[in-house]
Amino acid sequence: MSVYWNVRAKNLSPYVPGEQPKDRQFIKLNTNENPYPPSPKVIEAVKEAAGDRLRLYPDPECTEFREAVSKRYGVKIDQVFAGNGSDEILAFAFGAFFEKTILFPDISYSFYPVYADLWDIPYCPVSLKNDFTIKASDYKVPSDGAVFPNPNAPTGIAMPLGDVLSIAEFMEKQKKVLIVDEAYNAFGAQSVVPHINKYKNILAVHTLSKSASLAGLRTGFAIGSEELIEGLKRIRDSFNSYTLDRLALSGAAAAINDSRYYDEINKKVISTRERTAEILRGIGFNVLPSSANFLFISFPKIDGTEIYSKLREKGILVRHFKKERIKDYLRVTIGTDEDMDKFIKECKVITENH
Amino acid sequence: MSVYWNVRAKNLSPYVPGEQPKDRQFIKLNTNENPYPPSPKVIEAVKEAAGDRLRLYPDPECTEFREAVSKRYGVKIDQVFAGNGSDEILAFAFGAFFEKTILFPDISYSFYPVYADLWDIPYCPVSLKNDFTIKASDYKVPSDGAVFPNPNAPTGIAMPLGDVLSIAEFMEKQKKVLIVDEAYNAFGAQSVVPHINKYKNILAVHTLSKSASLAGLRTGFAIGSEELIEGLKRIRDSFNSYTLDRLALSGAAAAINDSRYYDEINKKVISTRERTAEILRGIGFNVLPSSANFLFISFPKIDGTEIYSKLREKGILVRHFKKERIKDYLRVTIGTDEDMDKFIKECKVITENH
Repeated sequence: MSVYWNVRAKNLSPYVPGEQPKDRQFIKLNTNENPYPPSPKVIEAVKEAAGDRLRLYPDPECTEFREAVSKRYGVKIDQVFAGNGSDEILAFAFGAFFEKTILFPDISYSFYPVYADLWDIPYCPVSLKNDFTIKASDYKVPSDGAVFPNPNAPTGIAMPLGDVLSIAEFMEKQKKVLIVDEAYNAFGAQSVVPHINKYKNILAVHTLSKSASLAGLRTGFAIGSEELIEGLKRIRDSFNSYTLDRLALSGAAAAINDSRYYDEINKKVISTRERTAEILRGIGFNVLPSSANFLFISFPKIDGTEIYSKLREKGILVRHFKKERIKDYLRVTIGTDEDMDKFIKECKVITENH
Repeated sequence: MSVYWNVRAKNLSPYVPGEQPKDRQFIKLNTNENPYPPSPKVIEAVKEAAGDRLRLYPDPECTEFREAVSKRYGVKIDQVFAGNGSDEILAFAFGAFFEKTILFPDISYSFYPVYADLWDIPYCPVSLKNDFTIKASDYKVPSDGAVFPNPNAPTGIAMPLGDVLSIAEFMEKQKKVLIVDEAYNAFGAQSVVPHINKYKNILAVHTLSKSASLAGLRTGFAIGSEELIEGLKRIRDSFNSYTLDRLALSGAAAAINDSRYYDEINKKVISTRERTAEILRGIGFNVLPSSANFLFISFPKIDGTEIYSKLREKGILVRHFKKERIKDYLRVTIGTDEDMDKFIKECKVITENH
């Protein structure tokens, strides 16, 4: 605490991202990075952009990147917003659309309450059902809007598209915004993007960090009606006019244009996920049905902290959340088949005498 | 205006950056970019970072970049904050340190009132003196803090270090923060950085966009006491944990480490500025004394819009602000000697019959 901080700085509880170890080599299954490298076309595009023109400001309209998204998703360019990762887009969206009580799941991306506090927005965490699914009817109540990931994180469970759209329809009548955080969408859930012309209040937020293997490039995009995109731009241009550098813009456009490469690696991730889930269930783990690039698992007689620590000792990093309902669960990113074999081997050792 | 926007989004008047033309080749003297390319070591570092590791999140601590700043400026690493350009750092600083009325010059960086509105901070623009200098005593009044660039923009006029420190000293007694925006500092003004251990309330904000020829890389840093840096981190980590990508982090560290290259190109910019100022004065222009990489000029009998338009017709872009006291002035970025010769030639044509 410092005498120089204002009330906001004093009261915030900032988000804590997953560990990024610098000293030791881990099998890193803790921050949902893609185990496969980015498309070679991305690397090429970035190297091409690394030249004397770095002395000039980037395109504030992010035209090349937004055009690529527009073509790939069949939407207008003015229905696309480009941001520094989906985190930045979410921060802008909270700043643009909400001011009274908003809704999001109690077990979800732990950045949501932090954004709400940053902008001084009251919020109401809505309990997941016992099976960790989101109950759509809980969101069809008066509110100032809602946000949830689909599939949800850290559970990995997808909500059927019909349910998502029914919430959007309810909120549209009240002219409230529904943010659908589609960070993990490429791994199984159905996207709302084909429906944004019907539901002007849906903002679909995407990141290139997971499905495009570009966590290190800090790029994301949102798709929604022109007026939602314009709202995001108003906040961005009151914050930092250029949040994407020339290298990120070129690399992101190249990634969006190379869907063939990414479809292939993400199919591998999904297949490894299904194989891993089956083996884990076979040795007694409770594994939630995942549509993401991670699994959310628990073992009946061992607490989460213990499994986490034993895996860490063996050089395997997974994510553990010290939160009441999920403290016995671990979120395990899907790595390569080789990574997962090592992970499964250690899981067997840890659990075999229980 | 949209029914989905909150009061903030409706009321904001976002910052409008200088034009970044895409269609036509201009001599671009409108956004204070450095006319010389970035250090070859920066390009090399970026290309080196463009590889498979882009699939992994960047270092959230920005260690390599902050260490480079720490060594170059002789401060502790915990006295350094890394950001996505100085604009992002200023946005965080407004969010962390102010809540009541803050002070900044009426003629200054036009993003300051926008940041204040974004965070709902009242502000009081303080008039520059008739000669466009900042009067230090105007800032030695009760307030919630202050911000100004040194040298000021768009005037280019530097404030003597003693005056800056006297304001900091006054504000320190009230435990209020003074942000000194040193974006253009490398071109002449004296920096407050050597004094941050004495004045715990000074935050010096730097960008690599101008003096390091890296407007396209979106990097900046702030230097101040550990508690000010911690305050910035609290806001950043409630907004977006990773605002600098792997490429930007590597390039920025390489730039900071190659001060020899940058000292040389910036000396050339200063020498071109002095030569240009002298010639412009010789043909009747009023040229404010600049310590920046731009000149702020007017011509007695022709209004600013007219000179701006005539230059634009000839393929030369400068910046014109439609603001009462300065509407007859133009801000002209210092380009290469060749650029400035073309600019001077057109200025002579425009003014010769007056």
